[in-house]
Order: sequence, then structure tokens, then C-alpha cells
Amino acid sequence: MKLVLDAMGGDHAPAEVVAGAVDYARATGHTILLAGLRQAVEEELAKHDTAGLDLPVIHAAENLAMDEKPAMAARRKKDNSMAVGMRLVKQGEADAFCTVGHTGGALTAGHMVFRRIPGVHRAVLTTPFPSAKGLIILGDIGANPDCRPEWLAQWGQMLSIYAQARLDIAAPRVALLSNGEEEGKGTELTRAAEPLLRDLLGERYIGVVEPKEMIGGAADVVVTDGFTGNVVIKLGEAIASYLMEVIREEILARNLAKVGAALARPAFRAAAKRLDDREYGAGLLLGLNGLVTVGHKCRDRL
Amino acid sequence: MKLVLDAMGGDHAPAEVVAGAVDYARATGHTILLAGLRQAVEEELAKHDTAGLDLPVIHAAENLAMDEKPAMAARRKKDNSMAVGMRLVKQGEADAFCTVGHTGGALTAGHMVFRRIPGVHRAVLTTPFPSAKGLIILGDIGANPDCRPEWLAQWGQMLSIYAQARLDIAAPRVALLSNGEEEGKGTELTRAAEPLLRDLLGERYIGVVEPKEMIGGAADVVVTDGFTGNVVIKLGEAIASYLMEVIREEILARNLAKVGAALARPAFRAAAKRLDDREYGAGLLLGLNGLVTVGHKCRDRL
Repeated sequence: MKLVLDAMGGDHAPAEVVAGAVDYARATGHTILLAGLRQAVEEELAKHDTAGLDLPVIHAAENLAMDEKPAMAARRKKDNSMAVGMRLVKQGEADAFCTVGHTGGALTAGHMVFRRIPGVHRAVLTTPFPSAKGLIILGDIGANPDCRPEWLAQWGQMLSIYAQARLDIAAPRVALLSNGEEEGKGTELTRAAEPLLRDLLGERYIGVVEPKEMIGGAADVVVTDGFTGNVVIKLGEAIASYLMEVIREEILARNLAKVGAALARPAFRAAAKRLDDREYGAGLLLGLNGLVTVGHKCRDRL
Repeated sequence: MKLVLDAMGGDHAPAEVVAGAVDYARATGHTILLAGLRQAVEEELAKHDTAGLDLPVIHAAENLAMDEKPAMAARRKKDNSMAVGMRLVKQGEADAFCTVGHTGGALTAGHMVFRRIPGVHRAVLTTPFPSAKGLIILGDIGANPDCRPEWLAQWGQMLSIYAQARLDIAAPRVALLSNGEEEGKGTELTRAAEPLLRDLLGERYIGVVEPKEMIGGAADVVVTDGFTGNVVIKLGEAIASYLMEVIREEILARNLAKVGAALARPAFRAAAKRLDDREYGAGLLLGLNGLVTVGHKCRDRL
């Protein structure tokens, strides 16, 4: 497998990205094409032992700074590292493009370079998300804040196909996130999407789920608009951090509890690992003529 | 203070509601008017020592069963316990109406009996919500899934006044929940609401907050549409429960951790108490000509 990595994306680029690429190339033997400012990337590569690794540098003259308006910058700077990297995938010289940079920049560059697959209404950004029964597939998580019902229905279909591969489930159960199934629940959008999902997916569409059912693992795929989906993943992270902080504060306020917590530390570590979304891998933008993954580092900026 | 309690609301009505009313009347000396089927409520009262307590029963011939379509049932059954109770408040015979029954029923009955305050676009359901800096006021949490920008702006004003009283803050900072402030973030709704909030609230409006900032306590009042708000409170509960369950599983899988957790139990209990929204009290429906509180028991059904 040949991957293109956006060497300039993320807070600590290119140093951290190059270091990660070296580790990954050594572990897998894969080719990693590093798209970025040649001199900066080569300087970072020189700090590592890269003997026997295939890490070609692809020069990108421009750069999307993390504080720029991402979509606008991606339009203006045609030779930014994301666009340069994606063009390699488009030309068949690599299998997928990966970045931990701006999500907004990746969306814009992705649409400009790859274009949508014919028939696809809108590309959908998706991520594995933890549930009590293992990972589920959640989308859209931020590419499309305002949605039309037919987009949600089509995403149900697209995410279902992705879930078959990603979760190894033959017939994923697809649900629509809502605030209840009774009369007056949901929005105009969800109520209009429901019959379309039923038409497209048949029995695979199991109806609406509330957050509690989603976290309980009642569905394998949960479809929602990009505003709600983005709030869901960000609130999930925020509440998990806050909870751990509250527990930590209460433990530190009690001497006996401090001793107890030290004994229980391996359990806490294991729990944190199960809940840490860095363990689940990157978000994936589906619906373009080329694979774009958007890694966790940029989650704060989604 | 005189309160009317919906004696027929909630899963274990009237038994649990009557028991709670007896406790509350004994602790406070307040009058609690119990609205419900006279015979059923009096049978429950007879099981308690009510000497010296003022717990009059107000007969309501009809009843909203928990499995009925709540809004429709509230319209059809004019003498349901919620409507009967609210009419007492309207007639000045009590100060507020409280239920732990159907939120949908309470919304419908509330609008039918009290009507909206002139000038109020829509009543807003609000709740205190935990943050790292103490409680904040969040609304709408489910009364209005589809919203117009001017409703959000007005709720900012209404919730700000409520926060002054509830949180004892002279000038609450009001924010709009969104998925980021950069270009392309938010929805048509949030982008249209922003200038209206600024116009109405001036410097009290501090802009949009993401979930992380909300949980961090960056604002005292967070305004959102009733769909997102409902997802937020339900996801908060679901993630908190799930996290505690994951920690519990990992502790139970390790003998030493079990000992440690036993020593740390008081800290866990204190943390759970800080995070348990039963500690915060009921949701409040604001904007009607009468006070309606919707208690936690019905949260699952919001």
C-alpha cells in the first residue's frame, strides 16, 4: 500500500508527522509519500534513521497555516500540501491521502481535486464511535451542517457499505439519530429522512435511535446531520474528560482514596484506552473519487 | 408557597409522587395540592402519616397514560391531571405546577391552559447543566426541535433573566451552541441567530461556544435549538453512565483494583453526586403565563 501523508498538517508539523511516517514505514514496509515543503520535510527526515524505508518527499510550494480560514485558503493556494498530495492519489500514484490538518481544508481540497462520485449528493465525514457493544459508524460528523433529507438517506447507504468493511458486519443495522420516536419528536429533516431511509435500506433501517440507544450499541451505523454529529463527537470528548477530572479531584481530596486509586490504576488505564478515540483511527471522507482520511489531531478543529 | 403536583405523572404514580409530596410537605410546611384521580390519591395518602400536613386532593377525572401520544392525549382529555393542576395556578390558587410525567403532555397542557406571555415567540424548556465552573442554564432542551433564529435570540434574553435568579449572577454571559466559529461553521439557523443575539443582549452575548467550552463553563447560559439541546442532555447522561460502566468492568476484572476501588469509594460517590442531574432539580418551562416544572423522572421521555 502507498499512502500520501500531508507532512504540513497539524499543530506540530512537519516534525511529528514525519516522525510518525518513519515509525509507520518501519513497522509496515509501506511507502509513505510525504507532501510538503521539501526543505522542511527533508530536514525532519534527516533526524531519523530511514535506511531501507521508502519515504519520498513530494514538494508542495504552499501551506495551509492552522490559523487560516481553511476552506478559503484551500481555494486560493492551489499548491497546498493537501491538494498536492491528493493529486498523487488521483493520478494513481498512491492509494489514499491522510492528513491531521484542518478538516475544512481537507474537505475543500478533496472536493476540488477528486470531485464527487457521480450520483453522490454530498461527501460525508464519518468516524468510528464507541458504544457498549463495540465501535459503531457515525456520520456526518461535520462536513455538512445543513442537510437535506435525501443526503441523510444516501449516507445511510454509504455508511452501511463502509461498516460492512470496517466493522466486518454482513448486514449493518442503520439508524437515524433523533430525540425520540413519539409524535412531535425529531425535526422536519429527520421526519422527511425516515421514509427515504426505509425505501433505500429496507429492513436494514431500524428507525430512529436516541443518544442512550446509540451509546448502548442498538445500531451499527448512526446517521445524522453534520451539525448534530459534530456536537456529538465533541460533547463525547468533553464529557469524558470532565468526568475523569471530577473523579480525579475527588480522589485527590481523600488520602485513603489516593491509595485506592493507585491500586486501581491499571483498571483506569484500561478504561481510558477503551474510551480514547485515538484508538479508533481517523475519520474518513466518503463519496469522492479518492480516499481522504482526516486524523484525530485535527478533531479539535473539525 | 403553594405548589400543585401532578399526582398521576411518572412511572410509579401515584404512589411515589404522593410519598414525595408527604416528605416535602413535612420538611417545608408548604401546601401541596395533589391533582389526580381522587380515590387513587387518597388511598396512597392513607398509607402515610399526614397529621398536620396540608395536602388537599384536587380531583382530575382523566389521566395521561405514559404510553399515550402525549400531546394528542392532552388535547383530547381536557380534565387530565396536568390541565386540572395548571388551572389552579391560573386561578391564583397555587404558585407553580410540577410534574414528573410526560414532557410532551406538559408542554401541550401548559400552552392550552396558560397561553404564552404576549410577545413571547415560543416557550422554552430549560435545565441547569453541569460544567467545570458550576451549573449553567441550557435551553431549549426539547420543546422546540425546529426553530427560527428570533426564537433563539429571545430565549437568550429569557434564559439570561432566569440565570440571574437561579444562579445568582448579575450579568450572565450568554452563548450560542455551535460546532466552531470559523468560516463555514454553524448552520443557517445559528448564523442567522448570531446578529439577533448580539442586538438583543449587547455585551452579554459572548458568541458561539463548542461543547468543550460549554462543559468548561465558558458561558452561564447556552442557547440552542430543542433538537440539539435534547441530544446534548441525553448524550451527557448516556456517556456518563457508559464511562462509569467501563471503569466498573475494568476494576472488576482485576483483584487489586477491586481493593483499590473499595478504598476510593467515597471519592467515586462524591463524583457521582456532582454529576447526577437529579441534584440540579427540574426543568422549567419559561414563557407561559404560569410556572411549569418538569421533573427528572420524565427525562427519559423528553
